[in-house]
Amino acid sequence: MSKQILVLPGDGIGPEIMAEAVKVLQLANDKFQLGFELSYDELGGAAIDKYGVPLADETLERARNADAILLGAVGGPKWDAIDPAIRPERGLLKIRSQLGLFGNLRPALLYPQLADASTLKPEIVAGLDILIVRELTGGIYFGQPRESKVLENGERMAYDTLPYSESEVRRIAKVGFDMAMLRNKKLCSVDKANVLASSQLWRAVVEEVAKDYPEVELSHMYVDNAAMQLVRAPKQFDVIVTDNMFGDILSDEASMLTGSIGMLPSASLDASNKGMYEPCHGSAPDIAGKGIANPLATILSVSMMLRYSFNQLVAADTIERAVSDVLDQGLRTGDIWSEGCTKVGTQAMGDAVVAAL
Amino acid sequence: MSKQILVLPGDGIGPEIMAEAVKVLQLANDKFQLGFELSYDELGGAAIDKYGVPLADETLERARNADAILLGAVGGPKWDAIDPAIRPERGLLKIRSQLGLFGNLRPALLYPQLADASTLKPEIVAGLDILIVRELTGGIYFGQPRESKVLENGERMAYDTLPYSESEVRRIAKVGFDMAMLRNKKLCSVDKANVLASSQLWRAVVEEVAKDYPEVELSHMYVDNAAMQLVRAPKQFDVIVTDNMFGDILSDEASMLTGSIGMLPSASLDASNKGMYEPCHGSAPDIAGKGIANPLATILSVSMMLRYSFNQLVAADTIERAVSDVLDQGLRTGDIWSEGCTKVGTQAMGDAVVAAL
Ligand SMILES: CC(C)[C@H](C(=O)O)[C@@H](O)C(=O)O
Ligand SMILES: CC(C)[C@H](C(=O)O)[C@@H](O)C(=O)O
Repeated sequence: MSKQILVLPGDGIGPEIMAEAVKVLQLANDKFQLGFELSYDELGGAAIDKYGVPLADETLERARNADAILLGAVGGPKWDAIDPAIRPERGLLKIRSQLGLFGNLRPALLYPQLADASTLKPEIVAGLDILIVRELTGGIYFGQPRESKVLENGERMAYDTLPYSESEVRRIAKVGFDMAMLRNKKLCSVDKANVLASSQLWRAVVEEVAKDYPEVELSHMYVDNAAMQLVRAPKQFDVIVTDNMFGDILSDEASMLTGSIGMLPSASLDASNKGMYEPCHGSAPDIAGKGIANPLATILSVSMMLRYSFNQLVAADTIERAVSDVLDQGLRTGDIWSEGCTKVGTQAMGDAVVAAL
Repeated sequence: MSKQILVLPGDGIGPEIMAEAVKVLQLANDKFQLGFELSYDELGGAAIDKYGVPLADETLERARNADAILLGAVGGPKWDAIDPAIRPERGLLKIRSQLGLFGNLRPALLYPQLADASTLKPEIVAGLDILIVRELTGGIYFGQPRESKVLENGERMAYDTLPYSESEVRRIAKVGFDMAMLRNKKLCSVDKANVLASSQLWRAVVEEVAKDYPEVELSHMYVDNAAMQLVRAPKQFDVIVTDNMFGDILSDEASMLTGSIGMLPSASLDASNKGMYEPCHGSAPDIAGKGIANPLATILSVSMMLRYSFNQLVAADTIERAVSDVLDQGLRTGDIWSEGCTKVGTQAMGDAVVAAL
């Protein structure tokens, strides 16, 4: 039975890195007889240019019908002056929300070959392997009401709402515990329960879910302290589960600890593990079109897709090993290059992974 | 004319570190004939124990009448099980809000003598000197409505509100620009304008205020990117201005970059520079009563008070030099100790600063 993969290259470096990831995906498809059929569409700025909106209804429909989605990156200065309601990012937020992709997995993994790339001292980050589980379809990103208005005294004001329901917290907490069970059985739930009503509910529900996971060691941490502990002693963490906004901030901080954000994939899953897969990094408009972007995060997103949405563990492992092999060969794109290594472009890096496969 | 200082030692290590800071303050008072009169009261857990609430009305009244407030730290496990409405932190939030202390200055400064204490590589943090200006009396910390309730279907839900008005943003933006003018004339405003309505207003108002500061180079950054850039290249920042929640997270992250959070003071100012001064670190209940806490952040809070609320620049400089002198002498409390230095306790450290004065 064939599986439908919708490919959304997006903006900036998106199309370049996606071209390499698709090469890898096609090869894996043949080699392991995965039966994937690929189709293409646009999201973000590219969709604004083509359809006038950052996510067209027909694209959303295709995404609904697909078995998994592979995304490059969205956004860029070209669309900065556009009406906020139809900015490129809105397309990303809409697809997450409409497909119910509430479970966002963001690994922060230090590749031993790239240990020097971190700005942190080697002993602090050597062997770093954290998984951040971010709630992706609720909280302040989508909360209603939100409004911008002029008060009677003529002053402008604006507000957002940060809501969480018990069921929203419960399902993401479960993802956190499930991931902890597959790893080192340590889960840290991050909130701001000393200030926020939503965080107090969050903490209470996480405690309830914990009863079903007696083997997992659960801790709670305030978000300010978590931001600090990630710098002080990141290896204390195994899995972190947190809300949409805190997850946005902490996952970016954590990924930068590794010094190689160009290497990190992510998954956004719905209740039945259908998912959208994308690199953690952005669309990097400053280097778009130059053929120098690092395609490895997107290639590793393919491997994450094989693992989580299709349970193709051998194929997933094989791709990861191929990536590790090219690093061992000393091949590096500019973002991860260091003295003594061979600097290569986007396409050469993709070709090397294909060869290693 | 005498000046009234209200001293609130608070909880945990608060009383120990405050005792040393008060010694330094008294000496400066005599030496520079500052005319300070000190009075004492309780805040946080200590206030719960004494008055049944984390900030008693009479304490608030005293704080209103004082010319400046010196605070230790609040909170601890002893009060963890208490009704959230009267937890120790509520006292802190209430005093900030009731006194209109909207301008929170949090320096992240690397002491050259403590360069090794950072978990970041020396070349990344050497000479680090950032000032975070955090909005302290608005946003999601105080926004109404906020509620925890049970829906008709029996499910619990809770929400918070993140509001900002034009005037709230304007006054904190001004503090940001004013501080930038006193420093390297670079201001980075941090928001999440690609998602939040409140951030869109924030950004627009900051742009308006910028017109009055043509010499200041203004940039805008999304909060997730800021969390990343603080790890990647923290020295790109001079002054950062941001909202209450983002400021809470980023200032803790930034302070940890220096590796010596036990050294960092903070100021919370109202519209006429009346202020509350406190160390950036918390009440550290685990080491309370052991006489090993680092009193230097509280001592430096005294110097910040002299500088910002009383314009006593010579006295402020003298205290800062005395702190630098004791570091040069190799004296260190446990939190900043390294091989080759002399480990001292809280009191010995305070005495050394007094001697250096
Ligand atoms: C582009 C933006 C809306 C998005 C977010 O904030 O979720 C991005 O930062 C991310 O983390 O995927
Ligand atoms: C104790 C807590 C309420 C407080 C805050 O979140 O503002 C603290 O973290 C701080 O930064 O001063």
